[in-house]
Amino acid sequence: MLTLYGDIRSGNCLKVKWLLDWLGRDYRWIEVDILTGGSRTPEFTAMNTAGQVPTLVFADGRPLAQSNAILLTLAESTSLIPVDDYDRAVMLEWLFWEQYSHEPYVAVARFQRAYLGKTAEEIEARLMERGHGALARMEARLSEPGREWLAGTRVSLADLALVAYTRVAHEGGFDLSGYPALRGWIGRVEAAFGIV
Amino acid sequence: MLTLYGDIRSGNCLKVKWLLDWLGRDYRWIEVDILTGGSRTPEFTAMNTAGQVPTLVFADGRPLAQSNAILLTLAESTSLIPVDDYDRAVMLEWLFWEQYSHEPYVAVARFQRAYLGKTAEEIEARLMERGHGALARMEARLSEPGREWLAGTRVSLADLALVAYTRVAHEGGFDLSGYPALRGWIGRVEAAFGIV
Repeated sequence: MLTLYGDIRSGNCLKVKWLLDWLGRDYRWIEVDILTGGSRTPEFTAMNTAGQVPTLVFADGRPLAQSNAILLTLAESTSLIPVDDYDRAVMLEWLFWEQYSHEPYVAVARFQRAYLGKTAEEIEARLMERGHGALARMEARLSEPGREWLAGTRVSLADLALVAYTRVAHEGGFDLSGYPALRGWIGRVEAAFGIV
Repeated sequence: MLTLYGDIRSGNCLKVKWLLDWLGRDYRWIEVDILTGGSRTPEFTAMNTAGQVPTLVFADGRPLAQSNAILLTLAESTSLIPVDDYDRAVMLEWLFWEQYSHEPYVAVARFQRAYLGKTAEEIEARLMERGHGALARMEARLSEPGREWLAGTRVSLADLALVAYTRVAHEGGFDLSGYPALRGWIGRVEAAFGIV
């Protein structure tokens, strides 16, 4: 059986959980509280020297980290990875962009406000600017005529990876009322994966 | 023919160039000076709304961004992507880790020192600490008995992606003398790809 070490408040962990549920896979969830150093214990870092959640452990005991690497591995040969070469490439582009240009702003601002208790004024202006830049880029993409999903013509891992922190962006102080296409897309992705 | 828009000083761009050369692909390199806003012009952002290099344009005119997404797409069905499921998953893990936990520190410190002209004292302490943390993690990995490459048993995209900024880490003030396994690995990866 698969074992997933994760913090239930973390979008990076939840996206893996949602995929496992969607796939109907049998797995065990082990809660790791990152705020109290749960991912920095000797036991944890023996498994993942990066000290990060999520970390998936296969039935044979071998570990795998990095949320989007886990998604790509678990979703292999499913409809969540486009068969078309270009669509698949674009899906990969969104996965890397998510970790480089979206998560470090949208998720970090949310973490600081919702978990560290910072006020709006205590959040670095750069986080909010870049977070809004990322949301605006998604809004433009999803406003293209006929575009329902980020990559290709059906729901893919790009949508799953990006929805994780976008749907809770308001907890980081990002007002989504100015992003109507994004809000419509969030609803579609939640429905596709049964995210409540 | 393929067209690669890149800044020749950027490791993210060079890794794609090295792969194209290794594959023997025919391509055109178009230099984009990121310091003078070359990736933020209306012409450029019409191609990549993220305003980032590298951006690859296929023969049919369709663009693809994010260095590691480009690597995965161009290297498909080559020996640089392990056939073994677990090795391939681990390769993906290193690709995402590179962009999240290595590049934002090692490459950014180098950029600030080598291109913006900052002194060692002007570099945020956090960048250096986290950069050294990333290098130490690679050193530990490459010090495992018999381990020559980051993922699997032969050179892969993980090595190519990680070597790009690791080999020039000293330009960001990271002294590599304390990382002997890393230095040996850099030499192996450079030899494997003919990087000079």
